[in-house]
Amino acid sequence: TELMEDSDSSRERYLRNVLREMLTYVAFLITICILTYGMVSTNMYYYTKVMSQLFLDTPLSPGDHSTFKHLSTMEDFWKFTEGPFLNGMYWEVWYNNKNLPENQSLIYYENLLLGVPRLRQVRVHNQSCSIHEDLRDEVQDCYSMYTPANEDTASFGPKNGTAWVYTPGSEMNASSYRGQVSQYGGGGYYQDLSRTKEDSAIQLQFLKDHLWLDRGTRAVFLDFSVYNGNINLFCIARLLVEFPATGGVLTSSQFQTVRLIRYVSSWDYFVGVCEVAFCLFVLYYVVEEVLEIRIHRLHYFKSLWNCLDVLIVMLCGVAIIMNITRTAMVGNLLKGLLENHTAHPSFETLANLQVQFNNVAAVIVFFSWVKLFKFINFNKTMSQLSSTMSRCAKDLVGFAIMFFIIFLAYAQLAYLVFGTQVNDFSTFQASIFTQFRIILGDFEFSEIEEANPVLGPIYFTTFVFFIFFILMNMFLAIINDTYSEVKADMSQQRSEMEMTDLIKKGCNK
Amino acid sequence: TELMEDSDSSRERYLRNVLREMLTYVAFLITICILTYGMVSTNMYYYTKVMSQLFLDTPLSPGDHSTFKHLSTMEDFWKFTEGPFLNGMYWEVWYNNKNLPENQSLIYYENLLLGVPRLRQVRVHNQSCSIHEDLRDEVQDCYSMYTPANEDTASFGPKNGTAWVYTPGSEMNASSYRGQVSQYGGGGYYQDLSRTKEDSAIQLQFLKDHLWLDRGTRAVFLDFSVYNGNINLFCIARLLVEFPATGGVLTSSQFQTVRLIRYVSSWDYFVGVCEVAFCLFVLYYVVEEVLEIRIHRLHYFKSLWNCLDVLIVMLCGVAIIMNITRTAMVGNLLKGLLENHTAHPSFETLANLQVQFNNVAAVIVFFSWVKLFKFINFNKTMSQLSSTMSRCAKDLVGFAIMFFIIFLAYAQLAYLVFGTQVNDFSTFQASIFTQFRIILGDFEFSEIEEANPVLGPIYFTTFVFFIFFILMNMFLAIINDTYSEVKADMSQQRSEMEMTDLIKKGCNK
Amino acid sequence: TELMEDSDSSRERYLRNVLREMLTYVAFLITICILTYGMVSTNMYYYTKVMSQLFLDTPLSPGDHSTFKHLSTMEDFWKFTEGPFLNGMYWEVWYNNKNLPENQSLIYYENLLLGVPRLRQVRVHNQSCSIHEDLRDEVQDCYSMYTPANEDTASFGPKNGTAWVYTPGSEMNASSYRGQVSQYGGGGYYQDLSRTKEDSAIQLQFLKDHLWLDRGTRAVFLDFSVYNGNINLFCIARLLVEFPATGGVLTSSQFQTVRLIRYVSSWDYFVGVCEVAFCLFVLYYVVEEVLEIRIHRLHYFKSLWNCLDVLIVMLCGVAIIMNITRTAMVGNLLKGLLENHTAHPSFETLANLQVQFNNVAAVIVFFSWVKLFKFINFNKTMSQLSSTMSRCAKDLVGFAIMFFIIFLAYAQLAYLVFGTQVNDFSTFQASIFTQFRIILGDFEFSEIEEANPVLGPIYFTTFVFFIFFILMNMFLAIINDTYSEVKADMSQQRSEMEMTDLIKKGCNK
Amino acid sequence: TELMEDSDSSRERYLRNVLREMLTYVAFLITICILTYGMVSTNMYYYTKVMSQLFLDTPLSPGDHSTFKHLSTMEDFWKFTEGPFLNGMYWEVWYNNKNLPENQSLIYYENLLLGVPRLRQVRVHNQSCSIHEDLRDEVQDCYSMYTPANEDTASFGPKNGTAWVYTPGSEMNASSYRGQVSQYGGGGYYQDLSRTKEDSAIQLQFLKDHLWLDRGTRAVFLDFSVYNGNINLFCIARLLVEFPATGGVLTSSQFQTVRLIRYVSSWDYFVGVCEVAFCLFVLYYVVEEVLEIRIHRLHYFKSLWNCLDVLIVMLCGVAIIMNITRTAMVGNLLKGLLENHTAHPSFETLANLQVQFNNVAAVIVFFSWVKLFKFINFNKTMSQLSSTMSRCAKDLVGFAIMFFIIFLAYAQLAYLVFGTQVNDFSTFQASIFTQFRIILGDFEFSEIEEANPVLGPIYFTTFVFFIFFILMNMFLAIINDTYSEVKADMSQQRSEMEMTDLIKKGCNK
Ligand SMILES: [Ca+2]
Repeated sequence: TELMEDSDSSRERYLRNVLREMLTYVAFLITICILTYGMVSTNMYYYTKVMSQLFLDTPLSPGDHSTFKHLSTMEDFWKFTEGPFLNGMYWEVWYNNKNLPENQSLIYYENLLLGVPRLRQVRVHNQSCSIHEDLRDEVQDCYSMYTPANEDTASFGPKNGTAWVYTPGSEMNASSYRGQVSQYGGGGYYQDLSRTKEDSAIQLQFLKDHLWLDRGTRAVFLDFSVYNGNINLFCIARLLVEFPATGGVLTSSQFQTVRLIRYVSSWDYFVGVCEVAFCLFVLYYVVEEVLEIRIHRLHYFKSLWNCLDVLIVMLCGVAIIMNITRTAMVGNLLKGLLENHTAHPSFETLANLQVQFNNVAAVIVFFSWVKLFKFINFNKTMSQLSSTMSRCAKDLVGFAIMFFIIFLAYAQLAYLVFGTQVNDFSTFQASIFTQFRIILGDFEFSEIEEANPVLGPIYFTTFVFFIFFILMNMFLAIINDTYSEVKADMSQQRSEMEMTDLIKKGCNK
Repeated sequence: TELMEDSDSSRERYLRNVLREMLTYVAFLITICILTYGMVSTNMYYYTKVMSQLFLDTPLSPGDHSTFKHLSTMEDFWKFTEGPFLNGMYWEVWYNNKNLPENQSLIYYENLLLGVPRLRQVRVHNQSCSIHEDLRDEVQDCYSMYTPANEDTASFGPKNGTAWVYTPGSEMNASSYRGQVSQYGGGGYYQDLSRTKEDSAIQLQFLKDHLWLDRGTRAVFLDFSVYNGNINLFCIARLLVEFPATGGVLTSSQFQTVRLIRYVSSWDYFVGVCEVAFCLFVLYYVVEEVLEIRIHRLHYFKSLWNCLDVLIVMLCGVAIIMNITRTAMVGNLLKGLLENHTAHPSFETLANLQVQFNNVAAVIVFFSWVKLFKFINFNKTMSQLSSTMSRCAKDLVGFAIMFFIIFLAYAQLAYLVFGTQVNDFSTFQASIFTQFRIILGDFEFSEIEEANPVLGPIYFTTFVFFIFFILMNMFLAIINDTYSEVKADMSQQRSEMEMTDLIKKGCNK
Repeated sequence: TELMEDSDSSRERYLRNVLREMLTYVAFLITICILTYGMVSTNMYYYTKVMSQLFLDTPLSPGDHSTFKHLSTMEDFWKFTEGPFLNGMYWEVWYNNKNLPENQSLIYYENLLLGVPRLRQVRVHNQSCSIHEDLRDEVQDCYSMYTPANEDTASFGPKNGTAWVYTPGSEMNASSYRGQVSQYGGGGYYQDLSRTKEDSAIQLQFLKDHLWLDRGTRAVFLDFSVYNGNINLFCIARLLVEFPATGGVLTSSQFQTVRLIRYVSSWDYFVGVCEVAFCLFVLYYVVEEVLEIRIHRLHYFKSLWNCLDVLIVMLCGVAIIMNITRTAMVGNLLKGLLENHTAHPSFETLANLQVQFNNVAAVIVFFSWVKLFKFINFNKTMSQLSSTMSRCAKDLVGFAIMFFIIFLAYAQLAYLVFGTQVNDFSTFQASIFTQFRIILGDFEFSEIEEANPVLGPIYFTTFVFFIFFILMNMFLAIINDTYSEVKADMSQQRSEMEMTDLIKKGCNK
Repeated sequence: TELMEDSDSSRERYLRNVLREMLTYVAFLITICILTYGMVSTNMYYYTKVMSQLFLDTPLSPGDHSTFKHLSTMEDFWKFTEGPFLNGMYWEVWYNNKNLPENQSLIYYENLLLGVPRLRQVRVHNQSCSIHEDLRDEVQDCYSMYTPANEDTASFGPKNGTAWVYTPGSEMNASSYRGQVSQYGGGGYYQDLSRTKEDSAIQLQFLKDHLWLDRGTRAVFLDFSVYNGNINLFCIARLLVEFPATGGVLTSSQFQTVRLIRYVSSWDYFVGVCEVAFCLFVLYYVVEEVLEIRIHRLHYFKSLWNCLDVLIVMLCGVAIIMNITRTAMVGNLLKGLLENHTAHPSFETLANLQVQFNNVAAVIVFFSWVKLFKFINFNKTMSQLSSTMSRCAKDLVGFAIMFFIIFLAYAQLAYLVFGTQVNDFSTFQASIFTQFRIILGDFEFSEIEEANPVLGPIYFTTFVFFIFFILMNMFLAIINDTYSEVKADMSQQRSEMEMTDLIKKGCNK
C-alpha cells in the first residue's frame, strides 16, 4: 500500500515500514483465522452426517435396498413418507420398548424436533404447453415444466385446507429454491404434520387417498428443523422430491447445520473479543485505503495488489453487516419460532443467511492468505519466482485463450453428442468440469463409449492427446523459458538490501 | 481464404479485410451455436434417464437385486419380460389403486406408449458349424455364431403366426443393428404384444411354454416407443438380449430421446429463422470457396486452413440435406404411425436419422471453433505460440510414430495375454483405450495381476515407465526446445502492424 | 544385422540392402500378426466371462448376496457346493420345466460338461508346528501352514475310498498349483462326482456328514472341463478354496479358455499356411544370425539390436517346439479323455501348455514390433530422437538407481507399517506395485490413514512430494537437456542420403 | 562420517577408507533387512483380514445388508452384539452340527479365544453443557461431548456390579484411546461376558432391559483377544462404537496382529543371532559417532549426513530398549493372563508396545536406505544428479513456501465452505490430504458441487489450474534450469579418481 517509493538511500527506512506493516498484517490474519475456526466445529460434519443418513440411507422397507435416493415413482414417495420419514421423525420409545420420558420427539434420543414438519407441493396447471395438431387426439392433458408462469394456483381435490388451496410464498416466509430441474417459487399447497406419529400417519393417508400428487405435481418439499442442546446446533433439513415433466422422480436434499445461538460458552466470549479486534483492524485498513485512494486516485487501481486490498476490505465490511443482521434476526425471531409447538417454524431465511456469511468469511480468509505474497516479494529468491510468473503472464494468458477455445470446443462437442445419454455431460457446465476431471484421470470411459461407439473413443483419444500432451506441455515450455531468462537477468542485478539483512541487523543490535 | 498476400504497404488494407472476414465469421459461429443449443434441451437427459431406469434398474422380483443388466439365463429373460418389462410398460392404476382415467398406458403417468411393444428374435440354423471328428458322437447339434449366412429362416415350434415364421427385415422396416457380439439383420421372428397387460402376459406365457427361445436363438430385441406431450419429445427404446454361442446372456440397451416434431413453441420459430440465416451463410461460403478454388486450383489445398474451410462447408451441406430429409420423412410418416394403435410403430429410421444429424451438427460446431485460430494468428503473442506448434510438428509427428509403435506393441501384448480374462483388454481396440486410461490413472491393476501373475506386473511396470516417464517427457523436450528457438527468432523480427493496432487506430478516429 | 558398414560412396547400395531387409522383415511381422490373431477370438473372453459368472457370481441362496467370492466359513463352502456349484454344473431341464433331450449336462444349454467334476483336498498333519511351553495346556492340536513337508498322507474318517485315502499327484496327472497362500502339491484326497445332480448331491452330503473338511484341511480344488461345439473352445475351470492356518476362507479361480482342436474351419487352414511361412522365415533368420555370429563372434553381442535379433529367433524356436508338442499331445490324449464319460478328464497339462504358448507368442510379437525401430533410425528426424534416448541413457540409468533406492525404501517402510492391515501393502511385491499406482493416482488414502493415523499421512505426503515432484521432474530435466544438445549437434552434421531420398529416386525412375 | 578430507594425493587411500566403510554399512543394512522381515509374515495380513471380516462384514441378520460398519442407532448396537458378535465369538458346533471336542471356543475352528470378551462404556454426566436461556424450557437434559472433565463416574441403573458402577482406568490396566470423535479415558462401566454363548446372551439381555445405554453414553468398547497356535500369532481386537453428542453412531475397529511369543521355530533362533549382530553394529556406530562428535563438536551437525547418522543410531538405541522391555513384559505377564480363563485378559499394553516397536523398526530401515546415498555420491554421474538437487534446494524451498501458502489457503477455504457437508473436507487436516489426492486425480467432484453449487466448481477449477498447471510446472522449471547449469559446470571440472576406477584397479591386481 505504500510500496511505490524505491529510492536507494531510503531503502532501510522503507524496509522498516514494510516490516511494521507486515507485522500488523500478520496480527490481522491471526485474528481472522481464530474467528473462522470459532465458526466451525468438528461436530458439524457429524451432525449433518447422522441426520442425513437417518433420512437418506434408511431403506423404504426392511429387506429392501432402495432408499430416498432411489425413489422412482409416486408410489415410492408415499412409501418413503409413511416409512423412513415418519419413523425417523418421531422417536417415541427406547430400544427396550419403554416410552421416552417426555412427549417430545428426540431424534436419536438427542435432537429435539422443533414444531412440526411440513410437506409443500408446487404444481403446474393443465394446458400449460402447446401440442402439435397431429397429436391432439392422443394427448389431451399437458402439464409443462415448472416455470412461475405455468404455476397452478387453483384449488383442487377436496378444495379445503392448506393442502388443497394455494398459499403464496409471502405468507409462508418461504423463498424460492433451486432444485435439479427448475427454480421453484416459495408458494404452494402445504400440509403441516402433527406432533405424534399416529396423527401424522392419518394425515398422510388422507393426502394419498385423495390423490394429492397427480400429473400437475412438479415438486414436493419436506421441511423440518431440529435442535441439539448438547452441542448447541440447529439442523435445518429440506428433502426435495421433484416430479419432472418427463415422468419419474429426482430427489435431492439439503441439511444445513448452523450455530444460530452464540455467546453461550466461555470460548464463545473469547471469539466475541476477537470480533471486536477484527472490526478495529477493518476500520484501520478502511482509513488507510481511503487516504491512499485520495492521493493516487484511479492510478491506485493499476496495481493488482491494491485492488486485492480494496476487495478484502469490502468483503470484511459485507461480513460485518451480515453478522449484525444475523444477530438481530435471531434475537427477534427465535423466541417466536420456539414457543408455538404445533406450527412449522421457518428457519430457512436464518439458515441461508448463516451459510452465506460462512462463505463470505471463507473467501476473506483465502484472499487474506494470498495478500501475504505482497510481503514475500521482498526476499530475493521469492521475487525471482514471482517475477517469472508476472513476466510470462502475457504469454500464459495468450496461451490460456487458445487452451480454452479448444477446451470449450471439445466441451460443446461432448455436450451435443453425449448430453442426452451420460450424466457427466448432461449440461454444458457439467461437460466443462468433466473435462477437467479427465485431465486429472477421474473418468468413466465406458459410459461415453456406450453412448456413441464411434465419436466417443475419437473424442476421448484426441482430447487426451491435444489437451494433455500438446497444450499442457506448451504451458510448461513457456514457464521454463521465462524462468531461465529471469534467472539470467537477476544474476546481473546489483544486490539490494533485503528483509533478511534488516532482521539480522536488528538481531545484532 | 484471401490471406496469401502480404506486401508491406497494403498491410492496413489487408488487416481491414481480415477484420471484416472475422466479424462475418463470428456472426456465422453465433448462428451455429444458437442452432445447436436449440437442438438439445436439459430435459433430454432426464427423459433418457427415467425411461432407462424404469426398465434397466428395476429388480426382476421384489427383494431380489438382479436387474436387466444381470440377466444370465433364458429363465431370467422370461422373469424380466413378465416382471419389470410388463409392469413398466402398462400403467393402469394410480398409487391409491384407482384406475387411470383413459384406456391408454401412461408410463410414469406422463408418457404415452405409442402402439404396442414388439419382441423380435434372430436365430441361426443347426449344423451351422463344423465339428471335429473325435467329438461328433458327443456333440450332435451345433449352432454357430450369428452371421447373415448362418441365419435361420425356417419356421419352428407351432409354425404359425409371426412369432414362429420368419419375416424379412424389409417387410418390417427394420435395419440391421450392431450388438455386443454381432451385427444382426433386420429380419426375424416377431411377436407384437397387446394394449393391455393381461393380454400381453398371456402372449408371453404362450411363447415361453412352446420354447420360443432355444439353442438356435442368438438375440431378442424388445422395441417400443413413447411420446411425452409435456416436453414434446419421443423416446425410441430398444432392449437387446443377446444369447451368444458361448451360452449365457449379454444385455444392452438404447434409448434415443429425439425431438421429431418441431416448430411448436415460439422459441422453435426463432430457431427456424436462424436456420434460414445459416443457409445463407453457407451459400456465401460455398460461393467464396468455389471462386478461390477456380483461381488457385489444387494449390489451394496445400494450406490446412483452406482444407478446413472446405470441410466445414461440405459438412454444412450434408447437415442441411439431412435436416430437409428428416422434416420430409416426419411429415409423411408420423400420421401413419400414430393412427394405428394396435400395431408396432417403427420409429427406428427416424430416430437414427435425427441422432446422426445431431452428431454431424456437433462436428460442425467443433471445427467452426477450431477455425477461429486462423484469425488469432494475427496477434503476435498468439502467432508465437502457434508457430511453435507448427515448427515442432515434424519432430512431433516423427516422435508420435515412435510413440504409437511402442504403444501398439504394448496394446497387442496386453490383448494376447489378458484378452481372454480381462474385459478392458477383451478386444484390440479396447486395449488401446485402456492404455490411454492407464496414462490418466484410471485402471484396475488387480485384474491384470490376477489374469497373469508374471506378465501382468511386468507389463504394467514397464508400460508406465517407458510410456509415461520416457516418452511423455520426450514430448515435452521437443516442445520446450522449439519454443525457445521461436521466441529467440521472434525477438529479432521487425514488428509489423497488428490487429490490435488497427483496432486502436479505429477507436481513436 | 549387417548395418555396420558406413562408407560414404557405398551409401546408396547400403540403403538398398537395408530396404530389402526391411521389406523382408515387414513380411515376417505381418505373418506373425496373422498367426497371433488367428490364436485368439472375440468369443474367448465372453466364454470365460459367462462360465465364471455362473459359478462365481451366483448367490449361495436366493435373496442372499454372498457368492463364491464371499465364502468365509466351512459351512459356506458346503452351501456353495450344494447350491450354485451343483446347479451350475447339471442342467437337466428347460426353462419351461421340460427335460433336455439327452442325458448329457449342457451348461447354458450350449456347453458340454466333459466327464465328471472332481473335488480334491490337501491336508496338513497334526503337530506340524511347535507350540511355546506356556500354551501347551491350552493348545493341544496344531496344524501349520501347508508345505510339502507338512502334508498329511494318512487316511482319515471312514478311511475307504479316494475321498479319505491319500492319492499322490503322479497318479492323478495333477501338477502343483500356486494359490494365494501357498503352492499346493498335486496329490490329495479326491472325490469324483456323478453324471447326475441327485447322485452328486448324495455324495456331497456323505462328505459333509463325515467331516471331510476339518482343521487339517488347507485347500479344496473343484475341477471340471466343458466343451463348446459351436465355437470349438474348451474351458478348463478350477475353483480353489483355501483354508489358511489363520482360519477363515480365501477363494480364487482359474478359467482357461483354450482352442485345443485346430484345423477345423477354412480360416484354420489359412492360418496353417501362415505357420509354414513363419517356420521358413525363422529358418532364414537362424541361418543369417549363425553366419554373422561366426564372423563377429562375441563382438556381435555388443549391439543391443543384435541381442534382440537373437532373442527373437530363440523365442520363435521355443514357440515352434511348444506348438509341435501341443499338437502331438492333443492327438494322443484327447480321444482317451473324451471316451470315458464317468471319469474326471485331466485337461490341466494341455491347458497350461496352450496358455504358456500364447504368452510366448505375445512376447515374440512385442519384441518384433520393437525391432522395427532398427529401420526407423535411417530417417533423420527419427534418429535425432533415438540418439537423444541413447545419449541420456547413462544419466537416466544413474538416476533410475537413485529413484529405485528411494522407491524401495518407501515400499519397505509401507510394507512394514501397513502390511498387516492393508491389502495393497500386504506383501513387499504388492507395495511396489501400489506405489506405481499412487503415481498414476489410483489409490485409497483412507485405508492407510486408518491403518496408521500418524505414519500413514506422513508416508503419503512425503512420497508424493519426493517421488512425484522432485524425481519425476528430474527425469524430465535430463531428457530435456540432452535433446537440446543432440539437436544442436545434428544441425552441424552434413546431411547424408536418407531412406526417403532413395525411395523418391526409385519413384522417379 | 570421515568424508571431509579431500586432498588430491590421498585420494586413493581415501577411497579405500570409503569402500571399507561402505562394505561395513552394507552388512549392517542386510542385518536390518533380515530382522525386519523376520518381524512380519505373510500370515499376519490374512489373520487380520479373516478376524475383521468375521465381525465387521457379517450382516446383522440374515437377508439384511447392514453390518457393524452401518450401525446407526442404539437398537442396531444390541442387534449386533446379540447377533454377529456372539456368533463370531463362540463356535460350539461343527458344520454338521456335531459339538466341537472341547469346551473352548475355537473361532474359525483354529483360533483360541483367550479368557472372556469385555464390554466397556464411557459416559458423560447430565448438565455438562450450558443451554441458552430461550431454550431452557424445551431442553432440560444436556449431555455434552466427552471430555475427561465431563466424564460421569456416578453409579446408575441397578447400581450394583461393574456394569453399573464406575471403575477407574488404573484398576483395569486400560489406557486412553483415540476414537473418531474424542480421546476416551481408560475407565468406565464394564461387563465381562461368560465362556458360553447362552450365558453371555443372558448378560446382554439384562443390560439391554435396564437401559445400559442411554443419553449419557458416549462410547462402548468391545475388547477380546485370540491366539492362533498354528502360526503363533495373537490378535488383539477392539470394536469401538461411539455415540456422539449429535446422536447416531460412529463405529471403528482395531485388530492388532502381533507375535508376542518369540524364539519358537529354528528361523526364530536365526533371527535371534541377527539381533545380536545388530546390537554389535549399533555399538560400533555409537562409538564412532561419539568419537567424531568429540573432535568436531557442534560443527559436526552442520552436515545433514552426520545428522542422519546420529538419528539412525538413536533410533536403533530406542528400538533395542523397546525390544528388551517387550521381552521382559511378555515373560512376566503372559502366564498370568493365560491361566485365568474366566477373566478378561488385558493384552492392550503389550500389543501397543509391539506395534510401536514395528513402526520404529520401519523408520530405521527407511533412513538406513536413504543413508546409502552418501556412498553413491562418489560416482560422477550420481554426484551430478545430487548436486543438482542440492544446488536448486534454496530455490525449491522458497518455491515450496509459496506453494504451501496457496495450498493451505485453498485447504482452509475448502474446510470452511465444504467442511459441514463433505467427509473429505470435514477437518482441516483431511482437507490437506484431499488436496494432495486431487493432484493425483483421486477425487469426487460431484460431492463438492452438491455441497456448494457456486463455490464448489470455482474452487475446483482454480485449484487445478493454479496448483497443477502453474505451480507444478514452476517446480519443473527450477530443476530443469539448475540441471543444465550443473552439467555445464561438471564438464569443465577435471576428472577425479572415482570409486569405479578403484574397483577396476582392484580387479586387475
Ligand atoms: Ca486418477
